[in-house]
Formats: sequence, structure tokens, C-alpha cells
Amino acid sequence: MQLTAFTDYSLRTLIGLGAVAPEKVTVGELSAAYGISVHHLLKVVTELSALGYVETIRGKAGGARLAKPPEEIRIGELVRKLEPELGVVPCLRTGDAPCVIAPACHLKRVLASATERFLEELDRCTLAELLEPRRKLQKLLKLA
Amino acid sequence: MQLTAFTDYSLRTLIGLGAVAPEKVTVGELSAAYGISVHHLLKVVTELSALGYVETIRGKAGGARLAKPPEEIRIGELVRKLEPELGVVPCLRTGDAPCVIAPACHLKRVLASATERFLEELDRCTLAELLEPRRKLQKLLKLA
Repeated sequence: MQLTAFTDYSLRTLIGLGAVAPEKVTVGELSAAYGISVHHLLKVVTELSALGYVETIRGKAGGARLAKPPEEIRIGELVRKLEPELGVVPCLRTGDAPCVIAPACHLKRVLASATERFLEELDRCTLAELLEPRRKLQKLLKLA
Repeated sequence: MQLTAFTDYSLRTLIGLGAVAPEKVTVGELSAAYGISVHHLLKVVTELSALGYVETIRGKAGGARLAKPPEEIRIGELVRKLEPELGVVPCLRTGDAPCVIAPACHLKRVLASATERFLEELDRCTLAELLEPRRKLQKLLKLA
């Protein structure tokens, strides 16, 4: 059972931005820190910006920074937004091939309910809790 | 967030076998019912047999059948066995590239705990609960 790479990169991006907040970080710096391509991180930052988590500043002294306090960023809510199709099996995802037993299958309900438990647990956690110890994170990321 | 196709096929195989238990079903019949290749289903039945969920009978009148009562097959336990590497992000899976912030990252713990909630919910469900209405399942699968 895996989250998408996009969600994984988004979580790491927010941890990186949170570790140096309120300072800015460039996509190049995040790319160097995590070893994730600039190409992927640009997409991630664009999406996080569209969702209101990140603010981007253009120009020579530009970069990205958190658009809200880390205490207000719930991890479950973030995952729900990044993976609207959080179906753990094909029949829970739109557009996938239908399963012949779908009209009589209880598994969909059981799996959807288990996914809800997963997200509820993540909703108990905010980005702020993931930013300690802050100095150590900054050092590991070679930021600030 | 997705379970592997192997787990998906395993769940469908057990529902198929359970729907006609204690009768046998051939891999060819399951393949025709679900539209999943014989090649994949052979692997699935072999693994389910190794795990003690399925019994296979060789020969002309052969086939596969449930090796234990559906009431004794817990879905969470099954998923744990089929996906021992149930890491939702790379750093929770062995052999994957390490993440630079791993020594200071709380996300691993939070995600592992959310995955545990997911499995606990699945442990509340047994295969027996997924086999009703049995006649409808048999009809949809064109079995029995």
C-alpha cells in the first residue's frame, strides 16, 4: 500500500519549508537537499501553491515559503487534497475497469472505511509536529 | 494510496472460492469470471495455498477451494501477510533510497501508526462477511 510519489514529495517539501520558516527556499535548494528532480519539485510547489499551502515569490531573490502556520496544516487534510482518488483497489477509483462482483461486494465499503481510519489518524497530526527538532532538520537539509 | 494488484486479485480469488465453498473452482473459471489472466491467478492461488488459505487439488477434477472456514479469515491479517512491506512512503520500505531527513523525521512514525489503524479496521472484517448475498455472488461470477 503506497501513497503516490507526488504526495511523498509534497510532504517532504512542506517539512523543508517548515524547517526554515518564515524564510524562503528555492526549488533548486530543495532539489539538492532531497535529491528529487527540479522538474518534479516545480510541479509539487505549483500544486501546493494552488492549494494555499505555499506562497511563491518570483524574481532573483525569489523562492517558496509556507503560506500558513504549520499548526494549521493537518496531514490528513493534505493527503485527501493531494489524492482525491484515494481508492486502495481499482473499483474504488473512477475510470478503472469495473469488477464483475461490484453489485454484491462489501469489500469496497470495508476498504473505504479502513482508509477513513488511516486519514483520521493523519488528521491528528499537524505539520508543526513534524518540524522538531528544527535545528537538526535544517542541518540535515543543509538549509539556513 | 493503493494496495498491490496481487492483494486485489487475492481478495477477489478468496471471495470467488468462498462464494461456492465447499465446492472447488478452477483457475480457468476464476479467470473467466473476473477477466484476470490465468498467469496472474496461478501465482495468487500458489501464494494463498502457501499461506494456508487455499487448498489445491490436482488432476482432471482438480481445482482450488478454501482451506479454512471464511469466518476464520481476517482481512487485515491477510493483507499483512500479502504485503509485508506495507510502507506507504519509500522510507518505510526496506531497500528504497534513504531520505536525508530520516534521522529527524516523525512522519515515518505517524504514517506507520495510520497504516496500523487501516489494518485494525480490516481485522474487524472476516471473509464470511464478504460472501453475502451468496447466491447473487455466484450468479455474477457465473459459478455453481
